[in-house]
Parts: sequence; structure tokens; C-alpha cells
Amino acid sequence: MKSRLFLVLALCLVLCLAAGALHAAETNRLYQTSTLQALMAGVYDGDLTFQELARHGDFGLGTFDALDGEMIALDGAFYQIKADGRVYPVAGAMKTPFAAVTFFKAGRTHMIEMPLKYQQLLDYVTKLLPSPNLPYAIRIDGLFPYVKARSIPRQQKPYPPLAAAVEKQVVFELANVKGVIVAFRYPAYLAGINPLGYHCHFITADRRAGGHLLDCRVEGATVAVDALANFFLRLPDSQEFLKSDLTGDRRHELEKVER
Amino acid sequence: MKSRLFLVLALCLVLCLAAGALHAAETNRLYQTSTLQALMAGVYDGDLTFQELARHGDFGLGTFDALDGEMIALDGAFYQIKADGRVYPVAGAMKTPFAAVTFFKAGRTHMIEMPLKYQQLLDYVTKLLPSPNLPYAIRIDGLFPYVKARSIPRQQKPYPPLAAAVEKQVVFELANVKGVIVAFRYPAYLAGINPLGYHCHFITADRRAGGHLLDCRVEGATVAVDALANFFLRLPDSQEFLKSDLTGDRRHELEKVER
Repeated sequence: MKSRLFLVLALCLVLCLAAGALHAAETNRLYQTSTLQALMAGVYDGDLTFQELARHGDFGLGTFDALDGEMIALDGAFYQIKADGRVYPVAGAMKTPFAAVTFFKAGRTHMIEMPLKYQQLLDYVTKLLPSPNLPYAIRIDGLFPYVKARSIPRQQKPYPPLAAAVEKQVVFELANVKGVIVAFRYPAYLAGINPLGYHCHFITADRRAGGHLLDCRVEGATVAVDALANFFLRLPDSQEFLKSDLTGDRRHELEKVER
Repeated sequence: MKSRLFLVLALCLVLCLAAGALHAAETNRLYQTSTLQALMAGVYDGDLTFQELARHGDFGLGTFDALDGEMIALDGAFYQIKADGRVYPVAGAMKTPFAAVTFFKAGRTHMIEMPLKYQQLLDYVTKLLPSPNLPYAIRIDGLFPYVKARSIPRQQKPYPPLAAAVEKQVVFELANVKGVIVAFRYPAYLAGINPLGYHCHFITADRRAGGHLLDCRVEGATVAVDALANFFLRLPDSQEFLKSDLTGDRRHELEKVER
């Protein structure tokens, strides 16, 4: 009996160690699949399931196969905000061509108690950051007198570049909503794979509206920042990705796509 | 007795699964600590032990605390090529401020049977690559009629930028040696954290000389290429790194440092 007990205990220990090792590999890490530049070049075929993506984070943003809407992940739930303005749950078997996620851990939270415009809000967050040289995940829960968000309709092959697809974007304006901004800020040295600065998606507290954030005003919010010391980039093995031209400087186009 | 056997088997299974999961997370992955641009800004304090680095790869290159020589990792062994031209084994407790490693898996190898100059060799390798949009690890075992390599002497604080430190580089010329080039090629979109194109270190077959490769001629070699679909970037949490200016465009300086 004793040796059996010992074996059970040993088994538990090994399980704990294995789980711990796997978890350690996942914490404090920004996990990204593909690059924004590939998306800009029209690489829209989803090649990573959300089931797999969820193994790497419970908080984040991205898009869907064929660029079918804006993705936001919050508290482990994944949402699809389509161009019809509605929010859909995301099935594990659905695929993404581009997403960034992390297991969000709020450090100290900060209270905003005055009205701020969008740029003022971003400037406020920037002042909270200990260094410009890390990626950050940022969560802003607040009351928003005004939100302007967008989504992009599903694209047909042959896929146009993002700058063309975005011309068909549908813009939603929301007034006096509670909601959450899910954002990442990338350091300048990662500008080849992401927008420089902030990339923000939004969803209402009732999870019924949202999108890629274009503008807002906030009036009272809590801001939580998670500095990410590790960055993991997964690259698609699709011919679409491997053959795309990722050498150009798309900063000018990026400006157009993000605003 | 039967239930005991079952427990032992279950234990083995869990161990195998855990090892498999951990290993899967490590394969086909380029692991890098810090960025070349941080090194160029003078961030030379080692903050990652070689014991830890070795958990992420058996093949790679980098440097040492205080920029004390060139590092090359090959078949799981780590070597330090100091400015005195000698090759030293690397203790696990030693630290690196910048390194890139992978668990190298050769796919198909390619035979070079004609004499090639350095640039011709790189052009030859480039033609082997299925896409410019991935990072690659490249191993070239060959006979080299000529090798020009360098190492940089240990720096003193306050650290000068790399472009100044490299002015003190010691250049070694080797004739008719067997040896190995350990190289990485980064895609253009990662130019903010690494040199664009190839970064090559060299070590002789007898492991007695080598360095950061500046020039060579090769006469017969085997080339093995490992396409890496995952890139992991570990960022230092030192004040030195967090406070350094990583926003500038150092392409011009880089040219000077790499050649």
C-alpha cells in the first residue's frame, strides 16, 4: 500500500511540474500569429484555429479567415464583431490569419476620473509605461460618452490588399456605453510586424457591439497595464504567406488602415 | 500488483507527454535574447546564463557579458572566441547580453563542389531558401582556403556603442582550414532587431580558432538549411536595456559593425 501511495504522490508531483513548466513558458508573453504587414499584403487565409490560439492567451485582438470582422478576446472569451455590427461567439474550429494574444495579468491599476479624448487617453497610458522598449497589453474598462469603431466585411478571392479592403469598412458610432478597450503597444523595433504604437479593439460591457477602435471619448476608467518581456511570433507556412512581398515600407498605407 | 503496474505505466505516459509538450514548444524555433540594436546602443551586461540559453538551442551565435568575444554554439557545445584568438569552453554560469539559438535540424543537405567567394556562397544559400519571409538557421561544413574573422575585446564601463567598440576588433586570417559556418538569416520585417540578411560566425573543425565571419573563400562544402517557423524574443529587464534608445535607424552603423 505504501509504495502505491508513493506512486500516486509521484504522479501528482510530475503533473504539477509539467503544468508549471508549460505555464511558465506561457506567462508574460505576447503571442502573435503572422504579421500585420502580411495582412496588409492580402494574406487573409486563416491558418490557426482559435482552439490553438486560446492555448496562448485569454486577452487579445486580431481578425478572421477572409478578413471576416474584428476579433477581441477578453477574460478567455473570444468574440467576432462582423461588418453587420453584431457580436458573435467564436467557435474553436474557426481560423485566424492574424492575431495577438496574452494571458493578461493586471499589475497596479490606474483610475482615470476626468474626461479624455482618444489621443489624451493614449498619452495618459504612455506615461504609465516604464519603458518604450517592451511590448505591453493594456486593458481599459470605462464609461465612454462616444466610441467610433469599425469592422471590415468578409473578402472574396483574389484578396485585395488591406488598404483596398478597408475602403469597404463599416463604421459604428456608439454613445454613452460602458465597455473595454483591449490594446497592445509595440516597441519601435517591432514596427516591421505591427503598427508602431497602439493597436486597440473595443467591446461594450454587454458584449453586443464593438470593433477596431477609431476614436473615442472616455469619462472615468480603470487602466491596467501588463508589460510583456517575451514575444513569440508564429509564422504561417501557407504559400500565400511565403510568397507575399513583405519587404516594402508600408508605413504610409498603415496610417490609412489604422485610422 | 496490477494496479501498481498501471500506476507505473501512467507515470511513464505522463512523463512522455510532458516531455513531448515541452519539446514541441522548443522545436522549429529561433530563440533570441535581446536585440542587435540594443547591443549597438551599448547594452553589454549579460543577463541570461548559458545554462538557460542551452535549454533553447544547441546551435547559434552571440556574445558575452561586457562584449567579451564572439560566441558560437555547435552540436550542443558553446564556445567563446576571445580577442586573443583562442577558443574557450563556456561555463553554464556565464552570461550573455545577446544571443540567438535553435535546435538545429538539417533537412536536405546540399553539396558545393566548386570554389566560391563569400558573397557567392551567400548567394548560393539564398537560392536554396523556399521563401524570403522566414528566419533560417544555416550550417556550412567546408574546406576554406581563406577565412577572415574577428573578435572584440572585453569592454569597460561606461560602455561605448558597438560602432566604437568594433574599432578595437582583432582580425584573424586563417588559410586552408576545415571548419563550420553557423549562420542565421532574418527576414526583412525583423530588421529592427537584427541585421538584415545573414549573420555568420565561424569555427575551425578542431575548435581552436574562429570568430565573427568577415570574409572567406570556400572549396567544397555541405550546406544544411533549417527553416524556422517560430521566433521567440526574450527581452532583458535590466535598466540598461529599458532605458536605451532603440528608436533610431542604425542601418548605416550596422553596415560598419557587421563588415
